[in-house]
Amino acid sequence: MAVTPFDSGMFRGLFGDTQIGQLLTDSAEVRALLLVEGALATAQGALGIIPRDSADFIQRAVMEVQIDPASLSKQTGQNAVVIPALVSAFHAATDAPEHAQYFHYGATSQDIIDTALILRLRQIITIFETRLGTIIHALGDMAQTHANLPMAGRTYGQIASPTSFGVVVASWGHPLISHGDRLNELKPRLLCASLSGAAGTLSMVGDKGLELRDNFAKSLKLNTPVQSWHSTRDTIAEFAGWMTLLSGSLGKIGEDLTLLSQSGIDEISLSKGGASSTMPQKSNPVLPSVMVALSTQSVALNSAIQSAMMHRQQRDGAAWFVEWLSLGQMIMATARSLSCAQELTQTITPNAAKMRQNLEGEIGLIYAEALSFALANHMPRPQAKEAVKSLCTKAGETGTHLATLAKSTWPEIEFGTLFTAAQQLGLAPHDAEEFAKRAQHY
Amino acid sequence: MAVTPFDSGMFRGLFGDTQIGQLLTDSAEVRALLLVEGALATAQGALGIIPRDSADFIQRAVMEVQIDPASLSKQTGQNAVVIPALVSAFHAATDAPEHAQYFHYGATSQDIIDTALILRLRQIITIFETRLGTIIHALGDMAQTHANLPMAGRTYGQIASPTSFGVVVASWGHPLISHGDRLNELKPRLLCASLSGAAGTLSMVGDKGLELRDNFAKSLKLNTPVQSWHSTRDTIAEFAGWMTLLSGSLGKIGEDLTLLSQSGIDEISLSKGGASSTMPQKSNPVLPSVMVALSTQSVALNSAIQSAMMHRQQRDGAAWFVEWLSLGQMIMATARSLSCAQELTQTITPNAAKMRQNLEGEIGLIYAEALSFALANHMPRPQAKEAVKSLCTKAGETGTHLATLAKSTWPEIEFGTLFTAAQQLGLAPHDAEEFAKRAQHY
Amino acid sequence: MAVTPFDSGMFRGLFGDTQIGQLLTDSAEVRALLLVEGALATAQGALGIIPRDSADFIQRAVMEVQIDPASLSKQTGQNAVVIPALVSAFHAATDAPEHAQYFHYGATSQDIIDTALILRLRQIITIFETRLGTIIHALGDMAQTHANLPMAGRTYGQIASPTSFGVVVASWGHPLISHGDRLNELKPRLLCASLSGAAGTLSMVGDKGLELRDNFAKSLKLNTPVQSWHSTRDTIAEFAGWMTLLSGSLGKIGEDLTLLSQSGIDEISLSKGGASSTMPQKSNPVLPSVMVALSTQSVALNSAIQSAMMHRQQRDGAAWFVEWLSLGQMIMATARSLSCAQELTQTITPNAAKMRQNLEGEIGLIYAEALSFALANHMPRPQAKEAVKSLCTKAGETGTHLATLAKSTWPEIEFGTLFTAAQQLGLAPHDAEEFAKRAQHY
Amino acid sequence: MAVTPFDSGMFRGLFGDTQIGQLLTDSAEVRALLLVEGALATAQGALGIIPRDSADFIQRAVMEVQIDPASLSKQTGQNAVVIPALVSAFHAATDAPEHAQYFHYGATSQDIIDTALILRLRQIITIFETRLGTIIHALGDMAQTHANLPMAGRTYGQIASPTSFGVVVASWGHPLISHGDRLNELKPRLLCASLSGAAGTLSMVGDKGLELRDNFAKSLKLNTPVQSWHSTRDTIAEFAGWMTLLSGSLGKIGEDLTLLSQSGIDEISLSKGGASSTMPQKSNPVLPSVMVALSTQSVALNSAIQSAMMHRQQRDGAAWFVEWLSLGQMIMATARSLSCAQELTQTITPNAAKMRQNLEGEIGLIYAEALSFALANHMPRPQAKEAVKSLCTKAGETGTHLATLAKSTWPEIEFGTLFTAAQQLGLAPHDAEEFAKRAQHY
Repeated sequence: MAVTPFDSGMFRGLFGDTQIGQLLTDSAEVRALLLVEGALATAQGALGIIPRDSADFIQRAVMEVQIDPASLSKQTGQNAVVIPALVSAFHAATDAPEHAQYFHYGATSQDIIDTALILRLRQIITIFETRLGTIIHALGDMAQTHANLPMAGRTYGQIASPTSFGVVVASWGHPLISHGDRLNELKPRLLCASLSGAAGTLSMVGDKGLELRDNFAKSLKLNTPVQSWHSTRDTIAEFAGWMTLLSGSLGKIGEDLTLLSQSGIDEISLSKGGASSTMPQKSNPVLPSVMVALSTQSVALNSAIQSAMMHRQQRDGAAWFVEWLSLGQMIMATARSLSCAQELTQTITPNAAKMRQNLEGEIGLIYAEALSFALANHMPRPQAKEAVKSLCTKAGETGTHLATLAKSTWPEIEFGTLFTAAQQLGLAPHDAEEFAKRAQHY
Repeated sequence: MAVTPFDSGMFRGLFGDTQIGQLLTDSAEVRALLLVEGALATAQGALGIIPRDSADFIQRAVMEVQIDPASLSKQTGQNAVVIPALVSAFHAATDAPEHAQYFHYGATSQDIIDTALILRLRQIITIFETRLGTIIHALGDMAQTHANLPMAGRTYGQIASPTSFGVVVASWGHPLISHGDRLNELKPRLLCASLSGAAGTLSMVGDKGLELRDNFAKSLKLNTPVQSWHSTRDTIAEFAGWMTLLSGSLGKIGEDLTLLSQSGIDEISLSKGGASSTMPQKSNPVLPSVMVALSTQSVALNSAIQSAMMHRQQRDGAAWFVEWLSLGQMIMATARSLSCAQELTQTITPNAAKMRQNLEGEIGLIYAEALSFALANHMPRPQAKEAVKSLCTKAGETGTHLATLAKSTWPEIEFGTLFTAAQQLGLAPHDAEEFAKRAQHY
Repeated sequence: MAVTPFDSGMFRGLFGDTQIGQLLTDSAEVRALLLVEGALATAQGALGIIPRDSADFIQRAVMEVQIDPASLSKQTGQNAVVIPALVSAFHAATDAPEHAQYFHYGATSQDIIDTALILRLRQIITIFETRLGTIIHALGDMAQTHANLPMAGRTYGQIASPTSFGVVVASWGHPLISHGDRLNELKPRLLCASLSGAAGTLSMVGDKGLELRDNFAKSLKLNTPVQSWHSTRDTIAEFAGWMTLLSGSLGKIGEDLTLLSQSGIDEISLSKGGASSTMPQKSNPVLPSVMVALSTQSVALNSAIQSAMMHRQQRDGAAWFVEWLSLGQMIMATARSLSCAQELTQTITPNAAKMRQNLEGEIGLIYAEALSFALANHMPRPQAKEAVKSLCTKAGETGTHLATLAKSTWPEIEFGTLFTAAQQLGLAPHDAEEFAKRAQHY
Repeated sequence: MAVTPFDSGMFRGLFGDTQIGQLLTDSAEVRALLLVEGALATAQGALGIIPRDSADFIQRAVMEVQIDPASLSKQTGQNAVVIPALVSAFHAATDAPEHAQYFHYGATSQDIIDTALILRLRQIITIFETRLGTIIHALGDMAQTHANLPMAGRTYGQIASPTSFGVVVASWGHPLISHGDRLNELKPRLLCASLSGAAGTLSMVGDKGLELRDNFAKSLKLNTPVQSWHSTRDTIAEFAGWMTLLSGSLGKIGEDLTLLSQSGIDEISLSKGGASSTMPQKSNPVLPSVMVALSTQSVALNSAIQSAMMHRQQRDGAAWFVEWLSLGQMIMATARSLSCAQELTQTITPNAAKMRQNLEGEIGLIYAEALSFALANHMPRPQAKEAVKSLCTKAGETGTHLATLAKSTWPEIEFGTLFTAAQQLGLAPHDAEEFAKRAQHY
């Protein structure tokens, strides 16, 4: 057990995510903080809030200085925020106090830290979008291919009535498309700069505060906030909520895959399963289990972030720290769940023969509903339902197929394709194909 | 302690909500279920799926039958879902088996229950929207009135630098406007009918499934789902997430009000506080505490709903039950939190004198940041910051106001309005007024 | 959807619990509050803190007055706590102000409310203990009966190696015995009276505070607290944590039963399953699903209670309200989960034939581990494992039983009972019987 | 933002914990796994299950081999568990296949991983116990010293009635003593070895399973489990619950310290506060905020662990992974919260003058309750309460102290020490001293 397997070298193959992980390192954070301080100085230089040559100096320096994140640790431990240490380090590294004094001018730590966070969230979101798109396309292809492949629909783990594998795949994919829509809606709210000064009023920059706030945001290609969001954290909480939704939808895929690949069910196979340390035959559905676990984890961490919305007054250390403790991991969990899904969509193979076999069983109880509707054309519906119920019991006791029993009980009735699963799929093929189309255009 | 105070007669005044509560009674549920079954029959009659006169009969009957919800209890206990009991009760009550046999035709319990839920969510959302509007308007007025009222900005509970009460109010209001936007975005996704039959394929209604699904939804003025959402619960989870966000923003108001009304701080007063059983002088901030508690409760319940997104296969009793156990209470919590906020916005009175007194204290440390920026025009900034730090210490030790010390230390410097809080508000008045305008147009 | 199905008449059969529910009604609360006030007056009368005849009067009156809980609603809504309303109602009902003035003397609302809660928790715990005992005994019998019944052990849903149904049952039961132990440990901490007055010092009763606190507690057969626990809520949180643990262990049983009763697995049957509104053949594992849902719900509500441990200063309305909003439901959830388990233990029937069939499958891969250990006596272990892995693949491709393949590949090796599941149970029978013994003595 | 600040070099000073952190590294895990494998081989050698010289070889080798954790990553990513990779690495590193084949004999991955976890939990618990003791002793001293120091008791943030700082400190300390008791109770349950083989039956070691399980556990000085606990996770969940309780009690201290150190309240000072990047005067209560944040985080992570109790069948990858994702962080959070508390107990200084001033305010409303009880000796109690209520209003309007008003209103009454806070402390000094005694003997 590591502090978190996301950070463990040993568990990198199971929970790691190199692409996202490198955006969540200390050095990525320092780089982002410096970039934001540079943008601030530039905007201030342009408005004459600080001398332009100091602004230029700072802008150059932030690209060049090398600051070891670990060296900021001690002072950060005392102040909670890293900026005082960063300011000191910047002074030390540049050795030009006449310019360096304008570094981090009029802003508060939270402005810089939150803006630097948003910059990285923008990168992270782009990666999420790419992965989401890949998964949706793969599911679309799968839904199309298997739109008409009959399998048992299951409720409470019990066989209910026939469905198609394609529409099951579509049910995995539709919510992902909706998550894409949701992300588009929340992005403009989330991707805002923060620049408000000590208590949210930006009072230290004189009468050019409005212009500065706007220019600063624009220079980073971020939206300008309507006012300070130091202690109104709805956009962060909204994003955490979105990751939870997404992880939940992926977790549902994980659950379904685990159930469908069970020994004795065997309706899908995953080409790469996990080996056991002692059992030669095992091939465990590792990735689906990871997706389920990550969803559970996201739900838990999300509850921390949501509770941190009760961010007291103009800044609340405790509430803010809660975000720090949870948000990074939620991002890792979402990222890894997406990459698991990406990989799985390449490895899922439905087993049509086994699907058919499970669907029918030996006695075909899955046709009970259809039979009762067919009989209802010949007798009152409650009576039809009762008759079928008895027949089901009889099928169970005698091991005779429901079709056989039905045909012998009501020889006068023509059952047509009633006992042919492929003819009992209702809207499933249509809905699967509709999803395939939506996916294609995603 | 009751099972839940939301349902307790004794706690009705504290946690109750008559308007919303009546939408969450057993009889409201039965009415909604019958209404949906009526709409189904009508849509099926029009398409010839069931005889039109049976459809007419059912449509009339659902408006007229009296079904005692408690009478459905036993059968519901056995089947988990209430529909089999409702079907029996409908048969018994109408005594017209030739028509009643077409009641609940081709649908599954979940279709009816979920659609009935959505119908009530639509009503609930309308009530939420009204309350939200009232609160936003009241906050807008308050932000406008007090846009220039100076008060101490506080971070970590410590006085930071001046802000205005108006912009604090604005910070309460802006996220509420965003929540309104979010609600508009999610409504089309949420307000969908459900009609998919036993395993999501609507196979029992023959080849008219598509048309039926669409007509049924339209007749209820709901959107038509792209496919079965029996086990893709992202829209329910999204709505729960939205309620959590809203409750969190209201909880933050509750926290701020509790802190600002503390004995010894006294910056706001609430005209109606709670009395103590033993202390004659007490006037407790009861409603703010309720809002904080309801936010905590919403976060917890939301985590249950989110975890229920991992809804296995075509229906998962356990996941669905989790929604039943949590969603109603989340609605009550949101409703009550909104009504608390409505009431509070009528009773909050800022105490300008106390705000001024707290802001200055006896030694005016709140001006430290402004002083250090002013000095930075006369000496290097780090040196200025250090000088002010020393002066702050001296002010604390001697009880002398920072202004007095500054003027005697640097007699040559003209400090102007630096030590006048009302002149140190930065963007606060502007931002408060901008919110007031947004609120007016909400 | 009701506010909570625990309180719904319609869902009483599914989620209700009459025995526990009646301890969580408004009238049960009022009765308990009055009982506590009576005990307080009596203890105070005996110590001369209040006139003895007033104490006697109050003691009699609390047994006799009829107070309608709903009548307390308005004042409770204003004060948050019910005691001021109760005091008024007591005055009004007794019409003897000379005595009634000593009702609720020197105590604060929280003293009375918390003590009344503890009295009911004591009753509730007794009921829990009885149910727990019944379940443990039933599981003990079941473990004994089926100690040697072979079934497939499953990991990740995949067949692993043989186990016995008896030891699976034992694995359900052992944690329940531990929960009983835990309950015994926490009870002395939890079952404490509360009597501390307005700010925890009991200052209003003069110098007899210590004696009063002790006598009051003893008269209710509760422990005397070491000091005020108004804002140290570890004992409540501990009890909530215990209920969560218990619900979790019961939820695991629910999960296992759902999986074992799946169509196609069919290793256990539950005599009373839930019917479908449309599918005649369905028999859903309703109670197991309820147990899973209640565990999820308990986890969520527990997180609210745990967060309320951060109960600020001498009393924190918000934190206390959170307990009110969650504790009652956690109790209902635990109670109902216990009653589900009680009922299920009467209805679980293992299907030995199906267990054997699933265990072996057609190709007997479950013997792979045992085979590889047997071969390791004849070749290096890694080589043995690889050989078995190849054989497993061959078995899968050819549909030949692993035993057949093994015997033909290594005709020289005597495999004995290796391919006889009943001989491959290891410690399972022993462990099952050990549990049966522990259960018998519980 | 890092993946988690617990692992960040930059945030080490704020959230790090070197002592505990080194027990949660990959290399600590590998060492523990090897140690367990060594103990297993030794126990098996002694019983003749594997050749004794192979056992000896393995026991020596596990102390000597150097295995790079990162090298295990790829295979672990595929199998989820690290043991197959460890077995391969052991084979490669030892180059003695005749012995190495008996490495990890008859056990399953989970046996080794869980036992290695328990070994480290034992070390972690010892560290927790030491820290807990230090804090309790420090709080005991503080409670003793300030047993009679009057301060305002506060409920809902409102001044209630006098208490003493000593008893407030005692209220922080008592639950910690109880947590120590709880830990003693749970340790024997938690500190169990795991040795059950693939499906919990230990079938691969022949008829010596019982003896082996017991010897193996004893050799590691762990308890022998009653049966497999692969999928009965109550002891892990219990420990997580315990950490949550402890973090909650520490978080309450953090909340109280934050409130008491607020600007304008100033009743305690913390010698080391955090500096601001822009405000020279700031000294933020950083450590109290950290404790609050860590408690919130623990509550959230605990909900993940609790939900993982529903561990399906004989092993459930998803549920197990959830433990991996949360347990390490809960340990870090608990550890850091303890170290914060340790540090804070050295730096808390109560400000007696400010306590007195806040307690009295200018008008002494805090004496209202005591006054109403005093008056109740001269008039009916409701009348007394009403009279005091009016006097409180008058005090507020006129700015006159309640004592002055009372003495002039009822000149005939002798109020004695009623308006002397130090004489109105009730049981507070006694209870503070009782805690000091308990703490001393801890």
